[in-house]
Amino acid sequence: MDKIPILRMGAFLLVTIQVDLYDRLALNLESDLVNMVNKTSAKGVLIDISAVSIVDSFMGRIIGNIASMSKILDAETVVVGMQPAVAITLIELGLPLKGVHTALDMEKGMSLLKSMMDSDDPDEQETADDTITE
Amino acid sequence: MDKIPILRMGAFLLVTIQVDLYDRLALNLESDLVNMVNKTSAKGVLIDISAVSIVDSFMGRIIGNIASMSKILDAETVVVGMQPAVAITLIELGLPLKGVHTALDMEKGMSLLKSMMDSDDPDEQETADDTITE
Repeated sequence: MDKIPILRMGAFLLVTIQVDLYDRLALNLESDLVNMVNKTSAKGVLIDISAVSIVDSFMGRIIGNIASMSKILDAETVVVGMQPAVAITLIELGLPLKGVHTALDMEKGMSLLKSMMDSDDPDEQETADDTITE
Repeated sequence: MDKIPILRMGAFLLVTIQVDLYDRLALNLESDLVNMVNKTSAKGVLIDISAVSIVDSFMGRIIGNIASMSKILDAETVVVGMQPAVAITLIELGLPLKGVHTALDMEKGMSLLKSMMDSDDPDEQETADDTITE
């Protein structure tokens, strides 16, 4: 199994990382995810890493890359379920995961994404209102 | 990583199977899932097997077991993302997965669970409707 499945849930994509991300698997995940964001016009990507107990700089970088790529395609990335030891390691490795939102669990991550989508909308709505009123 | 993460999403639990289910892993998954159904009062369990390309009688039996156990705890099980080859193999092995609902993908599985939950509640809905109309 050299593919990590990406599940579509409404406007979000969900990825659960359960295996060690070696080179090819990680690069496949990056490209699959970006293609999927493009194809489904997803507004958010949830990455569950609750099964990950060991993290290295490569994996940290992959998560950062995914977040940056998704951001360019207008989708926010939320990493959920990080174990305390993983958080410690990431900081000690000097990888503060900039640009990546985090949440304690799946449900909190989902509501974070929803609140981000909602806060994105008012500007668009205002513009839309302006267009209509003038 | 000898644990498959179980994600909670509202009233449902979500499990993505990405690795071969060898003995201990499968038994852990069974007990974790049943405990989780009990703890969270989940009404449905979604098992995504889109990453599974090879299935054997052991795995077929495990999925059947999970469905039966969940059913006793009043939660329905829906298996989503089954590859055509897996469906062929399951039938050839004589495992028609009785008691297990299936859906093509995550979203269809979720709406199947929702519709099952709604049809469980007819009395409640009727009462609600009455209250509104009167």
